[in-house]
Amino acid sequence: MQDNYVRPLDFKRGRVDLSHGAGGRVSAQLVRELFAHHFTNPALDAGDDGAVLPALAPGERLVMATDAHVVSPLFFPGGDIGCLSVHGTVNDVAVMGARPLYLAASFILEEGFALADLKRIVESMARAAREAGVAIVTGDTKVVEQGKGDGVFITTTGVGALPPGRSLSGANARAGDAILVSGAIGDHGMAIMAQRESLAFDSEIVSDTAALNGLIADLLAAVPAVRVLRDPTRGGLATTLNEIAAQSGVGMLLEEKAIPVREQVDAACELLGLDPLYVANEGKLVVIVPPESAEVALAALRDHPLGREAARIGEVTTDPNCFVQIRTGFGGKRMVDWLSGEQLPRIC
Amino acid sequence: MQDNYVRPLDFKRGRVDLSHGAGGRVSAQLVRELFAHHFTNPALDAGDDGAVLPALAPGERLVMATDAHVVSPLFFPGGDIGCLSVHGTVNDVAVMGARPLYLAASFILEEGFALADLKRIVESMARAAREAGVAIVTGDTKVVEQGKGDGVFITTTGVGALPPGRSLSGANARAGDAILVSGAIGDHGMAIMAQRESLAFDSEIVSDTAALNGLIADLLAAVPAVRVLRDPTRGGLATTLNEIAAQSGVGMLLEEKAIPVREQVDAACELLGLDPLYVANEGKLVVIVPPESAEVALAALRDHPLGREAARIGEVTTDPNCFVQIRTGFGGKRMVDWLSGEQLPRIC
Repeated sequence: MQDNYVRPLDFKRGRVDLSHGAGGRVSAQLVRELFAHHFTNPALDAGDDGAVLPALAPGERLVMATDAHVVSPLFFPGGDIGCLSVHGTVNDVAVMGARPLYLAASFILEEGFALADLKRIVESMARAAREAGVAIVTGDTKVVEQGKGDGVFITTTGVGALPPGRSLSGANARAGDAILVSGAIGDHGMAIMAQRESLAFDSEIVSDTAALNGLIADLLAAVPAVRVLRDPTRGGLATTLNEIAAQSGVGMLLEEKAIPVREQVDAACELLGLDPLYVANEGKLVVIVPPESAEVALAALRDHPLGREAARIGEVTTDPNCFVQIRTGFGGKRMVDWLSGEQLPRIC
Repeated sequence: MQDNYVRPLDFKRGRVDLSHGAGGRVSAQLVRELFAHHFTNPALDAGDDGAVLPALAPGERLVMATDAHVVSPLFFPGGDIGCLSVHGTVNDVAVMGARPLYLAASFILEEGFALADLKRIVESMARAAREAGVAIVTGDTKVVEQGKGDGVFITTTGVGALPPGRSLSGANARAGDAILVSGAIGDHGMAIMAQRESLAFDSEIVSDTAALNGLIADLLAAVPAVRVLRDPTRGGLATTLNEIAAQSGVGMLLEEKAIPVREQVDAACELLGLDPLYVANEGKLVVIVPPESAEVALAALRDHPLGREAARIGEVTTDPNCFVQIRTGFGGKRMVDWLSGEQLPRIC
């Protein structure tokens, strides 16, 4: 082949330059030695502009979701932008009730970014995809001048297969339904914030970033009657519940004592003046089920490693104003509004 | 609804701030008043984290492609980053022989970006999608701090349906095949460069950005035997042909005189020391067909408004070195290598 004389990329000391995004020989080398090397699968290896994928089973519908990832810092306790970009999109496909199958990945690199860091990120993506059972089948790389980006931004787009007859949507909640959450809230956001603010705690706060498709498959097998699934990311549990309330035209009443929050997360939130209800999660699931299915659903969640600390945290109410309210430890009630303004920039 | 008291976004004087990417109330407003408003379709309007799409016809395979768009400037003669981001991905799906159906769009906005410009871009995307017959079914928006981005970056990911039995790939070229191009090359890249360098010509150079799925459908209906389709974007015709030669394990011999280049593009290239063979196109098609189908394919291309100037520019040869060569006006031959290094940064 005519590429034989090209020196291999220097993944120890090398840096991204504009030629890596120009579409010529050096771009092809980056794809070959980094992306295709780590993501290898038949659709990607074909090397065409698009990936050709097998037909779905008869009657299966497509689900498609996309997420841009701009998290800062790129590496944080419990993960990095690479695995986060896989988990985020896998979860958006899975909460629709679909089996995530394929991901597309687009990279916007800043000139001067260390190839060693890019390699670590790509390896983390490859590992996360393998663990979640999805293939990264197509991609794209662009490079912008120094000062016009910030290291690396990653957009992932996922496609999954939705079995006939299944319908999950934020519009399906009904008064009387039980509201569950799969575990402690606020870990991801506070892991990022603790690192940014250089907070030191006795025990480090670790991001919960994880692919939820396994947990969701187990849950749906046990409780086909599940009405709504959603992962409470940016804006936290409070914003996610407000979105669902608005979509479904219902209210909600939460029990503050029932919402699991880790001690260090609570302490860090207090220090920074934040409310854990608004802090992002990247591996938690909100589940809304008819009340009679709540216990079976809780048991199914707790049976999975990612749902051990699942809890029933409230119920759906009739409310034309779509208010989400919370009963505090002292028996009073207060409003849980949408996140307004910017609490934690670039959290995912 | 509880959102009634929010003041509408100011699309005249307003600017993007970090709250537009925070996932809370203001993010929801941006989605509602801008993206959902212009892109409206049932899958998007459902307002969930992923889009649920109908099943494909039995036996149809999926094709998936993604492209990050970082073009600078954002607005240029003949288009803008909005329509470009639709055309680029529609074309990547269509050159695989698939019918493009759905797009996902992710936006990375820089704090301080004018909402008026964002609106113009979104309107251009919506128009381009409508004209190409695709729906933008899901999306995401993130905001980065001033100086960490550059106005707006857009990643689009496309999904299409590939009919049973159809197989187009860069690996399919065979010695003896004819090489066609659908029109004059270099328009897009030189439109961008002329604007960046403030070059003034008698007649403005206009980008060729266009969706090629209609042209491709007509071509494939007339000539099912087409072996390879590709749109010669970054790296230009030269790089695209080298990619195909390497994928197929063949050589190529081009006729310089036969390759259509507009006079102003030629003049601008000479001024800037560029070779039009390496300049990006965003609405041109490379077609490789068995020699006996070449005339029918040319006629089919010329019958379409986007293929009026289609030309037969060379043939596929046997060459274990996979060299692309060109016969010059003087009867000599020279090598047409891959683009090496960075010719035109941020061209798409």
